[in-house]
Amino acid sequence: MKEKYERVGRELVGKGTIVDYYHDSIKIPDGTVETWDFIDHKGAAAVLPVLPDGRIVMVNQYRAALDSFCLEIPAGGYQFRGEPEMEAAVRELKEETGYTAGKIEKILDIRTTVAFCNERIAIFLATDLTPGEQNLDPDEYLSVETYTLDELIDMISRFEIVDSKTICAIMYYRDHISQHRI
Amino acid sequence: MKEKYERVGRELVGKGTIVDYYHDSIKIPDGTVETWDFIDHKGAAAVLPVLPDGRIVMVNQYRAALDSFCLEIPAGGYQFRGEPEMEAAVRELKEETGYTAGKIEKILDIRTTVAFCNERIAIFLATDLTPGEQNLDPDEYLSVETYTLDELIDMISRFEIVDSKTICAIMYYRDHISQHRI
Repeated sequence: MKEKYERVGRELVGKGTIVDYYHDSIKIPDGTVETWDFIDHKGAAAVLPVLPDGRIVMVNQYRAALDSFCLEIPAGGYQFRGEPEMEAAVRELKEETGYTAGKIEKILDIRTTVAFCNERIAIFLATDLTPGEQNLDPDEYLSVETYTLDELIDMISRFEIVDSKTICAIMYYRDHISQHRI
Repeated sequence: MKEKYERVGRELVGKGTIVDYYHDSIKIPDGTVETWDFIDHKGAAAVLPVLPDGRIVMVNQYRAALDSFCLEIPAGGYQFRGEPEMEAAVRELKEETGYTAGKIEKILDIRTTVAFCNERIAIFLATDLTPGEQNLDPDEYLSVETYTLDELIDMISRFEIVDSKTICAIMYYRDHISQHRI
């Protein structure tokens, strides 16, 4: 079943700092035209940084949308649409944690919330890490913390880690080291 | 480090069908006030339905935000803010796939995209499934497909499954059956 949907209109409702908001007119298979939300995002890159002893480097930062602090893997939006994703991953890892990676490889490509937004996050595994200086954006304040994989999985099971890109990366990595696929 | 951020204003930019869009005024730790995007979403429930033979029930549907079809676990938004999440999970499973679950338990609580949106998805594992009739929303067209866990993980590894709630659920389930925790 591949029913036919067609976008027949797109109205800009508001431009934002990291997203723009639209009302799309979508013709659904029965011919009716409905208004659907569309949030346009440039995309982002994220990194799962694994230290030689197996500990994972995380960042803890305030997220206004949740009105709480959130423990996440390092990540950041592209500086322009079409920025090479690995360059963005390397930059965000360095800026947020100070680390540079001797080895970096893509492990996942996710869409965060498909019902209304096109945000795509490329997720990389970074190893052979060398520490260095953070270089945060002017409005960015975060703490760098390290955890074992078991600690992180326990926090996911207790709903203490909730960020979707972070859960995807950690659980994928866990399976793949247990399968010796990474 | 728990730096102080404070929301000092919130302006409604546009109301939508499933989200509303705001510009927030956020006072950051250095005292500057910045405009940050905020997308308000009522939240959703999702279900990983596992058949007695281990196959997993998935839905394949068109997603206008991606302009493509997307293979996902069954899910749907709350009908009202504060709807009990398990009731929503049971309803969406039945509506989208026809199945009712003899056993349903919460496995994950995720925030899809923490930089600008408060969307939260409660994810349940459903087993002891009994087939029945689908009951789709009038504008909903989707096909129900079943896959083995290995097939799904291969599709994740090839970036063919990209939906974040789906990757979280599948990878978490894989780890937990391998650990005999479920």
